[in-house]
Amino acid sequence: MNKKRGQQSIIFSSPPVITSTANIVGPMEGEGQLTEFYDKILEDTLDGNSSWEKCESKMMEWAINTAVNKDNSVLGDIDYVLAGDLLNQLMSTHFALRGIGRPFLGLYGACSTLAEGMLLASTLIDGSFGNKTIAAASSHHDAAERQYRFPTEQGVQRPMVAQWTVTGSGAVVISATGNGPRITAATVGKIVDIGLKDPNAMGPAMAPAAADTLWHHFEDCGRRPDYYDMIYTGDLGSVGKALVIELFKAKGVDLSANYEDCGCMIFKDNQDVHAGASGCASSAIVFTGYIYRLLMQQKLHRILFVGTGSLHSTTSYQQKDSIPCIAHAVAIEM
Amino acid sequence: MNKKRGQQSIIFSSPPVITSTANIVGPMEGEGQLTEFYDKILEDTLDGNSSWEKCESKMMEWAINTAVNKDNSVLGDIDYVLAGDLLNQLMSTHFALRGIGRPFLGLYGACSTLAEGMLLASTLIDGSFGNKTIAAASSHHDAAERQYRFPTEQGVQRPMVAQWTVTGSGAVVISATGNGPRITAATVGKIVDIGLKDPNAMGPAMAPAAADTLWHHFEDCGRRPDYYDMIYTGDLGSVGKALVIELFKAKGVDLSANYEDCGCMIFKDNQDVHAGASGCASSAIVFTGYIYRLLMQQKLHRILFVGTGSLHSTTSYQQKDSIPCIAHAVAIEM
Repeated sequence: MNKKRGQQSIIFSSPPVITSTANIVGPMEGEGQLTEFYDKILEDTLDGNSSWEKCESKMMEWAINTAVNKDNSVLGDIDYVLAGDLLNQLMSTHFALRGIGRPFLGLYGACSTLAEGMLLASTLIDGSFGNKTIAAASSHHDAAERQYRFPTEQGVQRPMVAQWTVTGSGAVVISATGNGPRITAATVGKIVDIGLKDPNAMGPAMAPAAADTLWHHFEDCGRRPDYYDMIYTGDLGSVGKALVIELFKAKGVDLSANYEDCGCMIFKDNQDVHAGASGCASSAIVFTGYIYRLLMQQKLHRILFVGTGSLHSTTSYQQKDSIPCIAHAVAIEM
Repeated sequence: MNKKRGQQSIIFSSPPVITSTANIVGPMEGEGQLTEFYDKILEDTLDGNSSWEKCESKMMEWAINTAVNKDNSVLGDIDYVLAGDLLNQLMSTHFALRGIGRPFLGLYGACSTLAEGMLLASTLIDGSFGNKTIAAASSHHDAAERQYRFPTEQGVQRPMVAQWTVTGSGAVVISATGNGPRITAATVGKIVDIGLKDPNAMGPAMAPAAADTLWHHFEDCGRRPDYYDMIYTGDLGSVGKALVIELFKAKGVDLSANYEDCGCMIFKDNQDVHAGASGCASSAIVFTGYIYRLLMQQKLHRILFVGTGSLHSTTSYQQKDSIPCIAHAVAIEM
């Protein structure tokens, strides 16, 4: 029986189980709003490594190993790892996976990577291609800053619409059997590009992609927003989040009651990050920490997790092109 | 029933069909050995675009649209597109997909991307998540050269072990039903890094990853190399190909009778590309042209297609790290 629904969605026939998660964050994230939900908080952004990129790589390796340990599994039990990050040629992922030694599928979805990985991992489990998979993603503020913008040490002043790339990594173990919340449905995003060109304003660029995926999810699956206790987007920040609410309001749907953005949940107001958090790790650390614990405690029963990605590069910006964006959604029910 | 075999492989229960392919190449590829197998040959490497990156993007968009046309389908029939390229943040893929408007999953597997995409597309079809998918990949010599090495116009002298990045793109339509060769099995690669650090010598770095995936494929699937009429690796070039043959010889297996590397098939000897062709498009244009036509003509009946990827970045090279590599295999039978 075809599991595709509508134009972009999937209903899983044997919903895969999220049997464990793990995360690790940098010091600034550790001082934020969700301190109690992190497995490990680094004391500095190098953690004894010779570069920020290598630190990010070690964070992902730690997150994957810790998620496997928490699952009472060993690496040999893992059939596939699906992972990615923001760095050119997925530098931190590839060097992390060198130490893992399991079958690996590299993904690039910018900050939507964890959701993309969870979605594809779920198809591999539900399609009977294996029993246990890992989806993982990472980002590092200092490594991303110097790659995408300016030398990190330069400390360039940032506009108020800008967001702060999260330093951290999250890993999710998705299994055919076991205890935990289940991934019941998913929606694969299309590229949406409304012509914005400012790489400092990724929230506004990504908001239409998030709204498009949300809209198709509801339509394809025959669900309304209130089917979910909460809907979480990945890293739209305060500006992008407000735009998503506006876009739905224009269609006559009120999303404000049960919608939050992970990028607005990580840092405290006095941490001066402007419009909020961004980066692959934004949704990755909030999902693997706060959201997963609330699901396990049955404080949340049904959520929609929407990874959001800004797919520009420094080259596309220099060539004066606009910012293509994407969002992938996974529905998780306890 | 679990379709996983051994540690890394999959046997499909309803083998997906490759119902069409398309490709497009640059002028130098068009003057090479496989001229008659290309759908379109550009007259220059810009083709009216303002940058090489934009030209690469347009090539991928053309390849996807042409593959859909040849399939007698329309874009609306395509359930998922899985694609990637070599550029930072998959620049050419994202801008190509902007014009396609279908659900999209971004992949990064360096030059193994087409095989990774065909593998994942096959799991989506065999797992009943849709009826029609596209896997696509591209590379552009001039865009890759300036990103990975030196300003292209500088014309830096290359060592004899170096390969020439192919300008081109290939797209493959993989369907649940229809006529054509079927993808019967696949093997997902692990990261293999033997410590080589010279980004000019990617063939020798990738050869152990290719040999590892080949070895596990034979072991997992209970097949011997002579099960296949031909085994094709993606872009090891003459040096990497010789190493794969040596690695198998050391295990007592002779691979020389039915093994070829796509990187050795594209250019003529007098085109002065040193160790052969490389880039995502190396395996993509050979598979979508030469190999697919020979399968359709029943001149080949069973082949193993092994995409090979060198996963380094300029940053990892500058930080003096070695080159992690990967190879993914798909078995195709007519």
